[in-house]
Amino acid sequence: MAPNGIITFLSDFGLQDGYVAIVKGVILRINPASVIVDITHQIPSGSILHAASVLQETQPFFPQGTVHLAVVDPGVGTTRRPIAVQADSHFFVGPDNGLFSPFITRSPSSSIVLLKEKRYFLPDISNTFHGRDMFAPVAAHLSSGIPLDALGPPVNDPVVLTLPDPQVGDDVLSGTVVRIDHFGNLITNISEKTLQKFLCNGDPVIRIGELTIHGISSAYGETARGGIVALIGSAGFLEIAVNLGRACELDEIKAQNAYGITAVAVFRDTDS
Amino acid sequence: MAPNGIITFLSDFGLQDGYVAIVKGVILRINPASVIVDITHQIPSGSILHAASVLQETQPFFPQGTVHLAVVDPGVGTTRRPIAVQADSHFFVGPDNGLFSPFITRSPSSSIVLLKEKRYFLPDISNTFHGRDMFAPVAAHLSSGIPLDALGPPVNDPVVLTLPDPQVGDDVLSGTVVRIDHFGNLITNISEKTLQKFLCNGDPVIRIGELTIHGISSAYGETARGGIVALIGSAGFLEIAVNLGRACELDEIKAQNAYGITAVAVFRDTDS
Amino acid sequence: MAPNGIITFLSDFGLQDGYVAIVKGVILRINPASVIVDITHQIPSGSILHAASVLQETQPFFPQGTVHLAVVDPGVGTTRRPIAVQADSHFFVGPDNGLFSPFITRSPSSSIVLLKEKRYFLPDISNTFHGRDMFAPVAAHLSSGIPLDALGPPVNDPVVLTLPDPQVGDDVLSGTVVRIDHFGNLITNISEKTLQKFLCNGDPVIRIGELTIHGISSAYGETARGGIVALIGSAGFLEIAVNLGRACELDEIKAQNAYGITAVAVFRDTDS
Repeated sequence: MAPNGIITFLSDFGLQDGYVAIVKGVILRINPASVIVDITHQIPSGSILHAASVLQETQPFFPQGTVHLAVVDPGVGTTRRPIAVQADSHFFVGPDNGLFSPFITRSPSSSIVLLKEKRYFLPDISNTFHGRDMFAPVAAHLSSGIPLDALGPPVNDPVVLTLPDPQVGDDVLSGTVVRIDHFGNLITNISEKTLQKFLCNGDPVIRIGELTIHGISSAYGETARGGIVALIGSAGFLEIAVNLGRACELDEIKAQNAYGITAVAVFRDTDS
Repeated sequence: MAPNGIITFLSDFGLQDGYVAIVKGVILRINPASVIVDITHQIPSGSILHAASVLQETQPFFPQGTVHLAVVDPGVGTTRRPIAVQADSHFFVGPDNGLFSPFITRSPSSSIVLLKEKRYFLPDISNTFHGRDMFAPVAAHLSSGIPLDALGPPVNDPVVLTLPDPQVGDDVLSGTVVRIDHFGNLITNISEKTLQKFLCNGDPVIRIGELTIHGISSAYGETARGGIVALIGSAGFLEIAVNLGRACELDEIKAQNAYGITAVAVFRDTDS
Repeated sequence: MAPNGIITFLSDFGLQDGYVAIVKGVILRINPASVIVDITHQIPSGSILHAASVLQETQPFFPQGTVHLAVVDPGVGTTRRPIAVQADSHFFVGPDNGLFSPFITRSPSSSIVLLKEKRYFLPDISNTFHGRDMFAPVAAHLSSGIPLDALGPPVNDPVVLTLPDPQVGDDVLSGTVVRIDHFGNLITNISEKTLQKFLCNGDPVIRIGELTIHGISSAYGETARGGIVALIGSAGFLEIAVNLGRACELDEIKAQNAYGITAVAVFRDTDS
């Protein structure tokens, strides 16, 4: 599959230092024609699952042949392996720590290689910044047309992490909040499909913290300012939102957040 | 008018999620040659007037034929209309909620269309993310040369919001702070022109909160560190600043800010 | 030396206003083919030395012929001079306030010119935003091939600021923390070379605040979660870090930070 010249870049580097630009400089020295698109650099430090979730949501909107450079790498300089992946006609470059699990598990025909060919790295490899020394140059070379299998030998046992699946019971569908977005919306792991299958044309009653929400809205603005809604968010998962407000700051939910986990339970409305 | 391939992008999406990159992926799939320039994604959530003000200040510095994609869209999924505008040889794409008021009111020959032609959208339209499903693809098509009137029928009654104008009295010019910038400078709605006309060669005395400032400085550094100055800011409006400090944190002003409005009054100095 | 079309951009403008995009619009009007790469816009307001340090760390990873636009400019509108510099086959544009000291002092053959030729500026020059009116257009013209000496007469006495050098004594190497990065790592001014020369194959004992750290680690992950390590960071300087945590928030260090300076002392381990 031919690369298209686009390289996306996701990290936990933040925006205050020179780290993001250093990686881009390295890429542009190797492939001056590449188009680099930031996904985000504000992944909470070292949060691999969070990064995997954001990458999974974003990747489908890029064209085939895009290279995705992702550096959330708490194990840099230890024995964790550097890898590149080809899956779903996209390329992925970064540490073998579970970052690419969604793509590896979803795509049975994915190819994974160990980054071993030093000619595709910077001359000096530090123990603290493989994003610069190894992953950026490899991403640039992939976007220039170097084939995946030129980078190193196959990896057959990649690290795979999985987000918790919701539990479907007879009377209750139990999920969890997996991410709070910029708007303060609580995004759960309950997909629209799972929800519809459970509800079986019944009406949902959603319990989260001390809140009970009846029914699924179709837009944030269906309720008045400050109204609480449950709806299917833009990535296809159940989310809890406050119209023109921040659901994550609701008193009825914050208390539970203190324990670090926010459970969501969906019931079928038996009164309707 | 021919598009130049540049697409600016302003939103309240923040930088922590994948939303900004998703929009860029959608654009690049349709027009891989486009050049996307972020204006800001840190508009306070749902603040349409704030967004309009930043866009109005930024747009003049882009070349003719630029497409401005602006998504501050608290009414997404409700009856608010999606529009595209051509005004002053620039294009604008986003919700019909007042975001583009400065350009529509300023340019009598502006054209506005309702986004209705589904062939220029993504195949599936959500109720929560029209930035991705509708506005991004339309912006990409406009930047590729699709003419405005191919997108849908004319709109003759766009939503127009206006920033409050300063009140010019005999003895006092009364304005208001409309924005606090990154440096903590207080930017008012009093333009240099309005100020000069009122002063009529007199010297100004500016009252804001419990502060009185005599005269207009020509640069931040005209006073010592921590000195308070009034000057004409880079967009041509009166602003209050502290040299190497943050005017918005002055005790004499914060008290008044508690009421959410900061009035500014300019008098003519009768002693000089 | 031929420009390569890349313009890096560093400032203290923040990301919430239109200022960064305004500068990019000005550049793209003059050189639509330029590739603009943000370094950071989150330099603490007016912190020239901080900006110089980030630029010094980032610049080497960009190809020869890159133009570096840097606007941390507390003296805008005063008598401080606007300059452009050619050093190490790179170009630099910004205020003459010490921002480019590392490049000027390091490169004996650097050329510096005063920006005086108004044909390379915007038509109107404000007293508050030379980044827009003067530095952006000059950077764009340089990236288009206008030679340095066309911009104005030579400057022979540029402002030079220097970061404090570590003090090498017989028994102690005394340095200081010069920057805290996004990860909370404390980056010192002690280079690997200075450290090795002082240690002379001995083992180091590092004292910072109330902490004593024995030995240099080779990776953050060499210790358990929360473990404190000293290592050579990605720019080649001694740094103090916490694995999966934030060194800058350690109680043993924060107390000292209250005084605004964090001293670091390295001793040779006499017991080993």
